[in-house]
Amino acid sequence: MIIQFQALQEKFRVILLKYGFPPRQAREIADVFAESTLDGVFSHGINRFPRFIGDVKEGLVLPGVKPELIRADAAFEQWEGKQGAGISNAISATDRCMELAGIFGIGCVGLRNTNHWMRGGSYGWRAAERGFLFLGWTNTIPNMPPWGGSEAALGNNPFILAIPRNKGHLVLDMAMSQYSYGKLEWQKKGGRDLPEYGGYDMDNKLTRNPAEILESKRILPAGLWKGSALALMLDLAAGIISGGNTSRDIGELDAETKLSQVFISVDIEGFMNSEERDKLVQDTLSFIKDGNPNSRYPGQRSLEDRRRHLEKGIEIPEEIWSEISAL
Amino acid sequence: MIIQFQALQEKFRVILLKYGFPPRQAREIADVFAESTLDGVFSHGINRFPRFIGDVKEGLVLPGVKPELIRADAAFEQWEGKQGAGISNAISATDRCMELAGIFGIGCVGLRNTNHWMRGGSYGWRAAERGFLFLGWTNTIPNMPPWGGSEAALGNNPFILAIPRNKGHLVLDMAMSQYSYGKLEWQKKGGRDLPEYGGYDMDNKLTRNPAEILESKRILPAGLWKGSALALMLDLAAGIISGGNTSRDIGELDAETKLSQVFISVDIEGFMNSEERDKLVQDTLSFIKDGNPNSRYPGQRSLEDRRRHLEKGIEIPEEIWSEISAL
Repeated sequence: MIIQFQALQEKFRVILLKYGFPPRQAREIADVFAESTLDGVFSHGINRFPRFIGDVKEGLVLPGVKPELIRADAAFEQWEGKQGAGISNAISATDRCMELAGIFGIGCVGLRNTNHWMRGGSYGWRAAERGFLFLGWTNTIPNMPPWGGSEAALGNNPFILAIPRNKGHLVLDMAMSQYSYGKLEWQKKGGRDLPEYGGYDMDNKLTRNPAEILESKRILPAGLWKGSALALMLDLAAGIISGGNTSRDIGELDAETKLSQVFISVDIEGFMNSEERDKLVQDTLSFIKDGNPNSRYPGQRSLEDRRRHLEKGIEIPEEIWSEISAL
Repeated sequence: MIIQFQALQEKFRVILLKYGFPPRQAREIADVFAESTLDGVFSHGINRFPRFIGDVKEGLVLPGVKPELIRADAAFEQWEGKQGAGISNAISATDRCMELAGIFGIGCVGLRNTNHWMRGGSYGWRAAERGFLFLGWTNTIPNMPPWGGSEAALGNNPFILAIPRNKGHLVLDMAMSQYSYGKLEWQKKGGRDLPEYGGYDMDNKLTRNPAEILESKRILPAGLWKGSALALMLDLAAGIISGGNTSRDIGELDAETKLSQVFISVDIEGFMNSEERDKLVQDTLSFIKDGNPNSRYPGQRSLEDRRRHLEKGIEIPEEIWSEISAL
């Protein structure tokens, strides 16, 4: 069925109100779920919404909670997420690090004891929309073996880097595994192999078969030892900067909660006007395209999906629409 | 032959004085080349020294030049590198971003028109030694095709993330290609295949044969589309934050010079004392090790090499020692 973006926002908002979110927070969270869906990121948009409501029902996500400032050192602050909704907490932290960057040129917020922020790119898009360069990352439950190992001991710890541009921001949203579990499930459902190796089978052999990887739970770090090392460092840095949990600590809990996140904004507008910046970006993108016509920049597909979906509506499977309507 | 660390420092220092570096700068640069060698990173230590002197002779690297502050917005500054020695410029920028972090909690320096900083990890170690969490990156000449392309249009843009620890800092120093050109040359020299796929041959097939990759010049991005996207974003961010060149611009010059770099330090000491921090790090490292005894943390091998080399001296091939002695 075809659903319009505004109808999707409204659908989510009404359900969130029903589950105890105050009006402004319900709108904020509904918008992010709807925008992720609009941008084609169903895995962290509409497809994830029922599980989010499940987390609310189980008391993992507390409606109406606002994050609280714990420590401040000028442009660097620590905030306590108090197990509020990951989306609201992350929006607060993104907005706060932009405020700090507005004052100090760069701002950093460490956020602890928060919940899954859903699509990490949301916060990159938000900062870029306001003209800030943005870096951010989160840790997760241990879900990936380190390079050379077979036991899941690292999170796949998504890393976000966003650059504003007048004709479409560039937003990198990159987990440290070569493929997400969502992608594996999706390919398995469609009976398709992965385009590249995605992990190991039960016999310790590299495979493109998503079902075999889901069985072994041994997903491959992106860049092998490189993604493995970066995942570890991002986890430790998130724990230290926020004063919160590392993936190890999260793995000891009953569910994936009490995560640590980092938000950094740089106020680049004062040093280079947006026309100069757009030229710098466009020159590089054109140069890459000249020699490599198939290349795409980070965020390009989201922007294409967004335009198409705004024009023609979003094709939503009946199954998930019914599931959401029953909430 | 076996050379002691101090003898290596002295050797480099005397040569640098001869080529016109003022005494303090000569010592600073000599120390970094010697320390990289001590840490086992010969590729950006002793093996690279003759090429560095070559760059000085050709006027690409200007001795005695100091970087200059261009713009300042509290904790965020832009510096002009004036084609000075990459090592001195990067030390200045690292020290300055730590000063800013000391004042504002976080500090960011963009450095433009600088030269190759040699081993990027040097600046991570330097910041960690002073108790700062550090992120930094540089762009390079285009040397890597983007994912899906065959023309080198991206730099491999090394990214550094350092975390201080009392019993040995963690320092990630990670280029965006799966293997460095130095590693390919090294394996080719030894007649060995790479342990994993490192790039494409002339027939557009993935290969582990370093000679074939050196011929095609088509190295593989770490994590395929992921390393490709991260390399692009780091390049653009370096150009924007420093107000300097992107890899595209650098590729139009006669040589790899006038690079752009980013240095970010976070003053983490005020929010968590070093004992707490060490416990957080150790708990995570032990947890990973428990399930995966072969895993190593970033910086571990450097530290092991350093200890062994300090105790027993550094084994330097006669060939490179003669080459350096002739400078």
